[in-house]
Amino acid sequence: MSNKVFKKIRVVGCSSESYQDAIAEAVARTAESVHGSAWFEVVQLSGAITDGKPTEWQATIDVSFKVD
Amino acid sequence: MSNKVFKKIRVVGCSSESYQDAIAEAVARTAESVHGSAWFEVVQLSGAITDGKPTEWQATIDVSFKVD
Amino acid sequence: MSNKVFKKIRVVGCSSESYQDAIAEAVARTAESVHGSAWFEVVQLSGAITDGKPTEWQATIDVSFKVD
Amino acid sequence: MSNKVFKKIRVVGCSSESYQDAIAEAVARTAESVHGSAWFEVVQLSGAITDGKPTEWQATIDVSFKVD
Amino acid sequence: MSNKVFKKIRVVGCSSESYQDAIAEAVARTAESVHGSAWFEVVQLSGAITDGKPTEWQATIDVSFKVD
Amino acid sequence: MSNKVFKKIRVVGCSSESYQDAIAEAVARTAESVHGSAWFEVVQLSGAITDGKPTEWQATIDVSFKVD
Amino acid sequence: MSNKVFKKIRVVGCSSESYQDAIAEAVARTAESVHGSAWFEVVQLSGAITDGKPTEWQATIDVSFKVD
Amino acid sequence: MSNKVFKKIRVVGCSSESYQDAIAEAVARTAESVHGSAWFEVVQLSGAITDGKPTEWQATIDVSFKVD
Amino acid sequence: MSNKVFKKIRVVGCSSESYQDAIAEAVARTAESVHGSAWFEVVQLSGAITDGKPTEWQATIDVSFKVD
Amino acid sequence: MSNKVFKKIRVVGCSSESYQDAIAEAVARTAESVHGSAWFEVVQLSGAITDGKPTEWQATIDVSFKVD
Amino acid sequence: MSNKVFKKIRVVGCSSESYQDAIAEAVARTAESVHGSAWFEVVQLSGAITDGKPTEWQATIDVSFKVD
Amino acid sequence: MSNKVFKKIRVVGCSSESYQDAIAEAVARTAESVHGSAWFEVVQLSGAITDGKPTEWQATIDVSFKVD
Repeated sequence: MSNKVFKKIRVVGCSSESYQDAIAEAVARTAESVHGSAWFEVVQLSGAITDGKPTEWQATIDVSFKVD
Repeated sequence: MSNKVFKKIRVVGCSSESYQDAIAEAVARTAESVHGSAWFEVVQLSGAITDGKPTEWQATIDVSFKVD
Repeated sequence: MSNKVFKKIRVVGCSSESYQDAIAEAVARTAESVHGSAWFEVVQLSGAITDGKPTEWQATIDVSFKVD
Repeated sequence: MSNKVFKKIRVVGCSSESYQDAIAEAVARTAESVHGSAWFEVVQLSGAITDGKPTEWQATIDVSFKVD
Repeated sequence: MSNKVFKKIRVVGCSSESYQDAIAEAVARTAESVHGSAWFEVVQLSGAITDGKPTEWQATIDVSFKVD
Repeated sequence: MSNKVFKKIRVVGCSSESYQDAIAEAVARTAESVHGSAWFEVVQLSGAITDGKPTEWQATIDVSFKVD
Repeated sequence: MSNKVFKKIRVVGCSSESYQDAIAEAVARTAESVHGSAWFEVVQLSGAITDGKPTEWQATIDVSFKVD
Repeated sequence: MSNKVFKKIRVVGCSSESYQDAIAEAVARTAESVHGSAWFEVVQLSGAITDGKPTEWQATIDVSFKVD
Repeated sequence: MSNKVFKKIRVVGCSSESYQDAIAEAVARTAESVHGSAWFEVVQLSGAITDGKPTEWQATIDVSFKVD
Repeated sequence: MSNKVFKKIRVVGCSSESYQDAIAEAVARTAESVHGSAWFEVVQLSGAITDGKPTEWQATIDVSFKVD
Repeated sequence: MSNKVFKKIRVVGCSSESYQDAIAEAVARTAESVHGSAWFEVVQLSGAITDGKPTEWQATIDVSFKVD
Repeated sequence: MSNKVFKKIRVVGCSSESYQDAIAEAVARTAESVHGSAWFEVVQLSGAITDGKPTEWQATIDVSFKVD
């Protein structure tokens, strides 16, 4: 009756600014089809290097959301 | 020719009764769009505590099913 | 201001009945000094064998509770 | 002199009833050739799905027993 | 603006020939709904045994592809 | 004589601002009863989602400090 | 009654030809004392190097087979 | 009734002599407030280097003891 | 012919400002001898504590770069 | 033809002296039925505590030996 | 005196043909500065996808070789 | 300005005496080109067996040292 089920989706967000921006980007895309309570877990952090500097921040996250 | 492909979906089932009930709930929801042979693997077991007692059993599982 | 901090404590509950009973035992002992929201994660399941039968169910869990 | 050696054997028990029944089955088979103190650790929990319901509970465990 | 988001899907490919054939099969099925840059990571390799010989090669992979 | 012992405590800090703020919060609470040299290790990063945006940053860390 | 028990054995197969040949070798040796349904999981892949070339392919696998 | 609960505490012992001395140091400090049966598990081994030699042996262990 | 080889180097960057600054520092040092495409993966995040506050952010990363 | 197969057996050695003694004990027992080249890998180190001191050193190891 | 020291280097080999070819490529490059006994362990297998097909096989390996 | 960078190198030390001797050997070789503060972490312990006895102790460690 009151049993809930959540689904987890793994996404990779990329940002030229920061990891939190990368996560926000990944969450925003995933959330288009998501309603109600939700949370995420960081699975991996990585990045791209250009001319000796990190130029892209990549965050792999698991987004969990309630299945209606 | 006889090559098969299976897809894995990660879901979290919650139950006030037991872990097996939580798994059954997660499987039932996932199975609505699933036909043919299928199996699951437990990824994590957790729960909620209220007044010093476990009041919700949460099972994160990977459900695998055949892609037609 | 609204920042919260939770503490995690690792405990092993043992029961001659079931894993859920072992978890409830561990939660009950830990909860004596715990108020407010709390949850747990199962870290490991094990057990003792006597005369070819499982006679004790052991659950190692992490109990998380709010630091006032 | 008083040094002891234990051996570990990995087995998978299957049951249509419950995980604890699956573990008991695995322990019973392994214990036929085992004497003295023994214990087990759960390595993985999985299961089979039929018609949208879990119909088999599978527990992979490591059984440890004293080498005479 | 130039932020990208990738999605990861876990699939199991099976082949009677080889692991690379199993991976290609899993990729082909997943790629039907995928455009643009993509990559995969091997999560697990397993197989079936018949009459003392490996008769099926199974590759579990995570396929990553760009979300438009 | 010069042997030292450190203790590790696992805490989860939450912040609406950033991961570093969440870590600082967790460190501050733990440090009330801590003197001398100390360090921390990040165990997990997660977060809450509201209206398609990350609204809470959660950092699970192990704080290590010298036992007097 | 219909409860089944499987046993897992860890073996390392070596081949100068390929990983699949190494697995087949490991399976063949193990299967001499095995009847009925069986499967394997790859635990590790490694190899030997001679004169700057891989000259031996080594596959560590877990072979699972039904206990009669 | 006969249900037992154990608590686990993570500590790092340091010694200029050996790993076993480092473990003994960590156990001794933890055991001051511990009665009855207890055991430990090694979580990590590390060390400090001075002048090209290991000069401190560090053992991170989980000490488990019965909660009265 | 078109086969490429990349090398991975593990470095720890430290910063009094932020994790991203720590990563940038580690990347900058490593990149002095690196040309062409490159990327990094975060292996561990840790830090130092002084007077109850995080005063150093430490990021262990694997830097990958093309071998000419 | 020149293909080799090794088998791995997991054993736990216990000693009141040292870890290396515990390993030697485990190796000695396993080696009674073993010929030819062999090696071992340490899987876990643990121990028992009596009166605030480590009184038993336990080493879980995987012993690998050639299958004739 | 007879003590040996080995060094481990992590490299990623890429090939349009196969994983074994990718490993051979990585080994060949690393081996230019390597003499004597050596071996490798596979750390990760991945790949690139073009037009719904795996078009590059990538093997991350640890090459171990004797330090003179 | 005061930002530091450390490099990690993975080495395997072998000794006919003990694990600590194996570690010291690995540290000594690595330290020839290392100045300033440094530390190590044990990654794996293994060994060789001859005539039913451990005859070589092998320690894989990560040596960390400051990059000037």
